[in-house]
This record gives sequence, structure tokens and C-alpha cells, in this order.
Amino acid sequence: MGKRVLIIGGVAGGASVAARVRRLDENAEIIMFEKGPHVSFSNCSLPYHLSGIVEDSQKLVLMDPDIFKSRYNIEARVNQEVVKINRDKQTITVKDLIADRTYEEHYDKLVLSPGATPIRPNLEGTNNSNVFTVRNVVDIENMNLFVNQTGVKDIAVIGGGFIGVEVAENLRLAGYNVSLVEFANQVMAPFDYDMAQILHKEMVDQGVDLILDDGLAKIDDGYVETNSGRKIKAETVVLAIGVRPETFLAEESGLEIGNTGAIKVDHNYLTNDKNIYAVGDAIEVYHRLLHKPTRLVLAGPAQKQARAAADHMYGIPNRNQGVIGSSSIHLFDLNAASTGLNARTAEQAGIPQDSIYVMPGDKVGLMPNSNPMHFKLVYEYPTGRILGAQAIGKGNVDKRIDVIATIITMNGTLEDLKDLELTYSPMLGTAKDVVNHAALVASNQLEGRYKEVKVSEVRELVEKNAFIIDARENEEYEAGHLKYAVNIPLSEFRDRLNEIPKSEPVYIHCRSGQRSYNMVMALNNLGYDNVYNISGSYLGINLYEYFNDLVTERDKIVTDYNFK
Amino acid sequence: MGKRVLIIGGVAGGASVAARVRRLDENAEIIMFEKGPHVSFSNCSLPYHLSGIVEDSQKLVLMDPDIFKSRYNIEARVNQEVVKINRDKQTITVKDLIADRTYEEHYDKLVLSPGATPIRPNLEGTNNSNVFTVRNVVDIENMNLFVNQTGVKDIAVIGGGFIGVEVAENLRLAGYNVSLVEFANQVMAPFDYDMAQILHKEMVDQGVDLILDDGLAKIDDGYVETNSGRKIKAETVVLAIGVRPETFLAEESGLEIGNTGAIKVDHNYLTNDKNIYAVGDAIEVYHRLLHKPTRLVLAGPAQKQARAAADHMYGIPNRNQGVIGSSSIHLFDLNAASTGLNARTAEQAGIPQDSIYVMPGDKVGLMPNSNPMHFKLVYEYPTGRILGAQAIGKGNVDKRIDVIATIITMNGTLEDLKDLELTYSPMLGTAKDVVNHAALVASNQLEGRYKEVKVSEVRELVEKNAFIIDARENEEYEAGHLKYAVNIPLSEFRDRLNEIPKSEPVYIHCRSGQRSYNMVMALNNLGYDNVYNISGSYLGINLYEYFNDLVTERDKIVTDYNFK
Repeated sequence: MGKRVLIIGGVAGGASVAARVRRLDENAEIIMFEKGPHVSFSNCSLPYHLSGIVEDSQKLVLMDPDIFKSRYNIEARVNQEVVKINRDKQTITVKDLIADRTYEEHYDKLVLSPGATPIRPNLEGTNNSNVFTVRNVVDIENMNLFVNQTGVKDIAVIGGGFIGVEVAENLRLAGYNVSLVEFANQVMAPFDYDMAQILHKEMVDQGVDLILDDGLAKIDDGYVETNSGRKIKAETVVLAIGVRPETFLAEESGLEIGNTGAIKVDHNYLTNDKNIYAVGDAIEVYHRLLHKPTRLVLAGPAQKQARAAADHMYGIPNRNQGVIGSSSIHLFDLNAASTGLNARTAEQAGIPQDSIYVMPGDKVGLMPNSNPMHFKLVYEYPTGRILGAQAIGKGNVDKRIDVIATIITMNGTLEDLKDLELTYSPMLGTAKDVVNHAALVASNQLEGRYKEVKVSEVRELVEKNAFIIDARENEEYEAGHLKYAVNIPLSEFRDRLNEIPKSEPVYIHCRSGQRSYNMVMALNNLGYDNVYNISGSYLGINLYEYFNDLVTERDKIVTDYNFK
Repeated sequence: MGKRVLIIGGVAGGASVAARVRRLDENAEIIMFEKGPHVSFSNCSLPYHLSGIVEDSQKLVLMDPDIFKSRYNIEARVNQEVVKINRDKQTITVKDLIADRTYEEHYDKLVLSPGATPIRPNLEGTNNSNVFTVRNVVDIENMNLFVNQTGVKDIAVIGGGFIGVEVAENLRLAGYNVSLVEFANQVMAPFDYDMAQILHKEMVDQGVDLILDDGLAKIDDGYVETNSGRKIKAETVVLAIGVRPETFLAEESGLEIGNTGAIKVDHNYLTNDKNIYAVGDAIEVYHRLLHKPTRLVLAGPAQKQARAAADHMYGIPNRNQGVIGSSSIHLFDLNAASTGLNARTAEQAGIPQDSIYVMPGDKVGLMPNSNPMHFKLVYEYPTGRILGAQAIGKGNVDKRIDVIATIITMNGTLEDLKDLELTYSPMLGTAKDVVNHAALVASNQLEGRYKEVKVSEVRELVEKNAFIIDARENEEYEAGHLKYAVNIPLSEFRDRLNEIPKSEPVYIHCRSGQRSYNMVMALNNLGYDNVYNISGSYLGINLYEYFNDLVTERDKIVTDYNFK
């Protein structure tokens, strides 16, 4: 007889442990306990039921207990809530939610994969029947039924993380009036503010009523009220302000909880009990760039932890590389992806960093569906070690971020990134890929060959009346430009040097940063020593200041350049 | 006054040198000499003019001489053929093809970027007026005009490399009857035969008359004749059998030519004359995996060489990392990409290697446009160092290959690849990405946890009556299966162990290799010691044997699984 392995919770963590244990030991007895009716489903796909992209909610269920049994000889007990871990006896106490009885099961090894619960703040109305959270298939089915059957028109989503944004998107695609309320000044924390503005614009353009810098105060009949006193019409409310690791069982049985509030595990995903492992959203993991524990609620890392835990039960060593945090999202017409640290998190962690923001084409410009890609690269100063990146565009942004994730994992620098020999075909990319391009610009900055200011600093420059050159051709300038910018095209500046002061700082932008970069380099060569490229250039300024008044005929220009 | 830098040839190599020199030195005098009328165009996009994807051939021209002049103060002299390098005087002799006169220009630094010429074999008819090669905008314009205006219906493309395949595709898209004749047994040499079969199937499915293992013998009026005596109707012929580096000027002036027949350069892309650099398709480069010089006709490396050469003129050190060879192609409904060594080239080079072939989904299965991705990973045995990969599918194959290219460059192993934390959203990928999946399978193989046979060995197994298990469910088996395979579904095998012999080797496949992998592991656990997974599984067998008779009701099955 083999080991008796009990697993609390299914999905990415629990089901992966079960499958791996089976592959390592045909004789193991493996039982998964799941409180709900589904032991294996695609969490990340849940929001897509709301738009009908996944029409049949049963498709969200990846594997039924009978398939676990017949194919893998794994027992998956659904509607069974584990209510207690009896560490002294090596048993768990289980409540059968259907039969309403309690029983005990012995384990040789126990794996906790309880996940994390959506936070329901203690505010007026948050327990009303028209208020939903999204954790599992039942949740999304209930929400979908409710909005379909009660003639709801207006829905408020509270929280602008992955789930909130995806729920808002899918409800909007289904034709509802959707408001999204976010406490911070931006959605999607993995992105810096300058990049998040692109996502904000997309959401607003697609008709989402986006309310930033404001929190939920209460939910009342037919509306929600925010902290600022704003009343938003909403017959249904979705709470997506975050999740809390499910640590109840662990805490109650004396397993150690880390400073992040999640279950503490060692190199092998063992808790402080040598027979109890923990994996998935309920544990804290080591961030290899921040050098400290963190929480990371993602399916990929959960699967890797699950495999490592199973391997450890059978004496197979595992590498624990820590995490860097890579993720992506599809949002209306855009794709967005990020990995590692953004400038904000690096700064908060006290890691000296610098960054560049470029927007090269994602394919050869003359090919169909070629679009600018907004790409931000964050690196350690002065080493040039890559810390993170963010990319947003209509095209293949995740490809570029996956390359950066790989470089980070391999401890690569700007030099490595610059040299990478990536695939190219005009239908799929450019000979000098976006990541090569970004690394070249960043190297120039790191080596002090040229200087730049961030797109976020442009407002201040305009307000203090700095000397800003628009290096585009005159007809481009006339169609819409930054207020107070002087138009000296790259094609004319050599004959107009007398117009460019040496006595004060000069800031240059063009459309995407290519022409201005060349002008900056030329002026540096000509003895100007206070010349700055404006990172992000006009396309970036446009997007960053989209909700403001810094540019003339803004929309027209942005549309002209095919970045709706 | 700055340096006088003369550059022979434009496009990726020459134009990039010019632009970089300008950025480094505002005072340099930079002159590019180009034999043809265009100094900067998108070579790789040329075939797309034939289908009308790039309708206006002038769009293929990226930059005109007047823009080079006005923006970058670079003089681009078109229709000027450099006929001689006078190294003793540091001059070149130039023939003005318009004015029909010859003149000399002095250089401080000379850069050769002459490119490579399409090979026109010395066979009957290859110089006829209906026979074309593809090198530049004029070539493609001429070909396009000819086929449009002369009522051509049948076109033969000779050669199945990138250009041949892309020309065939675009002519087919334009409605012509297209034959493609390739001397080798497969198109697209960067791919192994098993992967190339997928491309063959796609071309045949799209109506290309694909003729492999056969070469051009002669071109006659209205047809071409092959070595095997086959006559193929063709009123137009495109020769795309390869290119020859343009070394005439270099050779004639005593510059060293390498063993590959291309110009020899040092770490800094200097020839054996300290004032003459060479970059692009005319030089030989160092292959970092094969440890020897090679020729690599790709735009990305040319740009990097150009930058390095310019930097060296100005004392900026460069890293010369050698090349690994990464490329991609869009072919009808498929994308295909590869990097590093394939199994064939590794074997030919005597590098001990092994490989795996998997076909996980490119996205979460329930999402729109989810498709299997055919992925082959080649690694060094016994180190597990990654040597190369090939991917083919409808989705984002280049993303996966770019990750592999990055891992190769960073000297990564299967362990590194397994652990990579890549982006995931159900609309864009899977929690366990294709490359993670491939690395896990390969690790199991490397570590001897399980054994597999290649899809190419299946025919032999069938012919020698080996014991082959089809681990799919019965209804899948009934719909079409490998001849002589025994159907023992994963869901039943534990009760049917008596049907599985211990005395002889057992080979197992399912649809994509997941279920068979689990059965192999279980049988290993149960004391079977001669069990093999069939790499590539049924989907792979189907594609590999597509033109043969090894499977029943082949087409139906393949279509069922959405891989047309």
C-alpha cells in the first residue's frame, strides 16, 4: 500500500499535486476534498461567461470527479468541507455538506490548497442579494443568471485589479452600463501610472464609466455611493477589491502564518509540520527581486508549487527560484502584459532604478494590423540588470514580456537584451524587435550617452514654460500638438540651430521618439549639454494626458496613428 | 571635419551603419552607394506585393535619398555601382549608371554591405524573360507586372527556402496555380522533417503543387522539367534556390574570404584591412552553438553587425556573441518559427542531443481560437542545455521560440525552462506555458524517468507489428486510428493490465501525448520496464504520415481536432 495523500482544495494547486503524486506513485491513495461542487475549473476564465465568450458555464469545469477516478485513480470528493486538522492524530475532520454529517480521514501527507476568498468589506449593503463576488463557477453562474433575469441595466464593479477589470469588460461586452470604482489612482497595479493611463483610455473609449481615486462607501437600493459622495446608478454590484488567503484551518491547527498574512512554507512548500504542505493562493512566496516574502495569486506559480510539493514527498529535489510575477490581460482591443518590478515598486523597495518608455511598431509598418507597441523597461542603476517591463498594444505584447521574464530569471542585463537574436518575419514582428529597441535606448541612457525626461514630467515642463521642440514635420505638428511646443523638424534643425538655445535645457519629442532621439544625439554632438528626449514622445504624451488639456486636437491625432 | 565614411550597399546593413555613424558623429561625412534605385527597402516584405497584401510596391521603399539627406544629413547615391576598391589610395571607383561615367571617392572608413545575389543555375532556359529571381523592389515589380499582364496561370517556384515558400504562398493567394519544386525531401531547412511535414500539409491543403526530392532540369516553353523527368506546366518560373554572397569587390581587392565563401571579418566586423568593415549577407558569422563560421542571411543580425561596426569606428567596444539563427514565417493559416539547432543539424555537427515533440494548446481550450501548438525542443545530452526549438501552429508560435532564443543565449538548461514564470491570461495562453510543458517532458526524458520513441519511428513499429496502445477513449479510436493499434483507454487500463504484455516493448499514444504520458508513468510504476511514449502522439502521427496510409479516416480526425 502506498502513501495516503489528502488534499484540501482542487483547482490549479490541489489538482496538480494530485496528478503529480499519481504519476510518481501508482500505489498512492489520493483524495481531494472540495467544499464546492467543482474540483477543477478554469478560475481565470470565469469572467468570460458574462459576455458569452464562454457561453456554457459547464465548459468552465475542466474535469469531473468521475474522470479523476477513471483516468487517474484519484478520488475527488466535492461538497466536502474540511473543518479541522488534527495534527496529533494525522487526521482531518470533514463535513459532508450534502449528507450533513462529519467524519475523519487519516493522512500520511496532507496538502493545503485552500485558495483565497474575495474580500467583502464591512459596509452597508455589501451583503445584499444583488451584490456578488467572483471565485468559482457557482458565483459566476449566479451573477450571470441574476443580471440576465432581473432586467439589470447598470452594474458597478468595485475594484480595478485583474478580476474587476475583466468582469467590467465582459459585462460591457454583454451590453450593460458598467461603472468601475477604484480606490487608487489607477487600475491594474502591476503597471506604472503612465502605462495604466493607456488602459484607462481604452476602458473609457469602450464606454466603461471609470471612477478612480474613490472608494465604496455604501450600497443602497439602485445605486452605490462612493467615499467622495458620488452616487452611481447600479442595480447590481460586483465586489472585486481583493482576496484574503484562506488561513483559518492552518492557523487553528497551529501552522505558522507569515508576515504577509498567508501560510508560511519552506523551500519545499512544507509548513512547520513535516507532513503538511501548502501551495497556491493561501501561501506566501519568496520574491526574488524584492528579496522578501510576498503573495502572488496566479495559476502558473501554483502549478509549479504543486509539482514541487509532490516531488518532495518522493524525495525528488526541487529548485525554488522564488517568483518575479508575470501576468497578462486582454482588455477590449488591447493586450497588456507585465513582469518583474515596475518603476513604482522598485522605488518603494529602495532599489535604484531607471526606466525607458518606447513605442516601436509591433510589426513591419506596411503590413496589415501593424500598430505601435507601448513598452516600458525598468532596470537597475548602475548595473543595467533588468528588473521588469510592461507592454500594451493591439498586438503580441505577451511575447515581449515573456522574453523579459526569461531574461530576468537568467539574471540578464541591458547588454544581453540588446543582443538577443529573436525571430522575425514582417507579418509577425520587426528585424529589430521591440525588446532590442528598448534595450538600445536604455543602454544609451545608462551609459550617459543621452538623457531623457519621463512623459509624466511633461505637464510640469509646459507649466514652467520650458523650451520644448516638436521634431515632427510641420503638417504633423499642425494637425495637433503639445501646447507651447516649438516645431523644429528633424529635417530642418541643422539649418535652424540658431533657434535652439544653449543656455537652457531643451526637451525634444516627435511622434514615437525615433526622430527626437536622433536630434538629441546630434545636439549632444554639437556641444549642447542640456538636451533631453521626452520618453514616450507625442503618442505617450497624448495617452498620458488624454483626460486633460495639454494637447490640441488630441483625439484626431491619436486616431490618425491607429491607436484608438 | 569628421571622418569620411563610405558605405557600399544600403538596406538593413548599410543604412544601419549610416544612421548609427550619424548619431555618434554629427560631423562625419557619410555617403551610401547603391547600385539599384532604392537604398532602403523591406527585403523581407517583397513577396507580399505578389498577393496584394502590400498593394503599392512603393510602400516597400522605406526611405528615399532626400529623407536620408534632410533628416540625417546622409548622402544616399542610388544607381551608383562601386566597381573597384583601391585600398592603397583609400578610394573606391564608382560607376554612375545613369550618367554612364566613372569617378573616385576617398574614404577614411569603408563599409561593405553588398548583400547576396540569388543563384541562377546554369541550366537551359534559366535566362528566359519569363524567369525571375527576387532580390529587390524592381525584381518584384517586374515579376508582378509580368504575371498580371501576360495572362499567366501556372507558375513554378524552384526552391523551398524562405523566399521560395513565401513567393509560392503569395502567388497562390493571388489565385495562380503554383508548383513548388524542392531538391531536398522537405522545405524550410531550419525545421526537422517531422515539423516540416506540417508545413507540407498546409501548402498542399492550400492548393500548392508540392514536389519534393526533385530538382530543376530545364525550363522550356510553357513548362519546366525536373531531374526525375516530370514536366510541370509553368508560363512563369521563379528561381529561389539560394543566394551567393557578393564578394567580387572584396576578393578583387585582396580582402580575405572565409571557408564558407563569404567575406571574413574579425570580432569588430573589420576585414583584414583596418579601414574596411563588412556587414550583412556578404559576410560569414560565428555560430555560437556550432562553434564555427557560418552564413546567415537575416535582417536582424545585419542590423546588429552594422551598429557594432559603427561603434568600433568610434572606439566603443562591442560584444560579439555570435549567432544562433532565429527566424519565423507566416504560411497561409499557420505561423512557424525556429531558433538554434534542429535535431538534424545538431546530429550532423556531432553534438549529442535528444529532443521531444509535444502539442499542448496555445490557449485555454475553452477560449476562442484555441489550437494545438506543435513544439519540438532539442537539448544537449547529458547536460540538458537547450540547443534549439521549432514551433508551428495557428497561434503565437514566435512567442515561444523567442523565449527559447533567449534561454539559449543565456546558456539555459531544461531546469531553467521548466521554472520560467511566463505571462498567462486565458485569452493569450495557458497557466503552464507550452515551453514549460515541453521542458517538463524533456526533463523526464533526460532524467530517465520515462522513455519515448519519435513520431518518425512509428511506421517501422507498425510494420514490425509492435504492441502499440491507443490510450484514447473508444469513440475517439473508432473515429480513426493508427492501423494495428490496440485501444486501451487511460480510463480503463488499470482493469485491463492483463492485456498489456510485460515480455515485449509497449508503445503508447493518445491524442496529444498527455494521457499516454500518464499511462507510461503508471506502467513504469507497476514494474513494466519497456514502455515508451510515442512523441507527437496521434496528432503528430497524422501529420507526419499525412501523405501515406498509416492511419484510418485520417482527414476526419485531423479536422475534428481543429488543425486543418
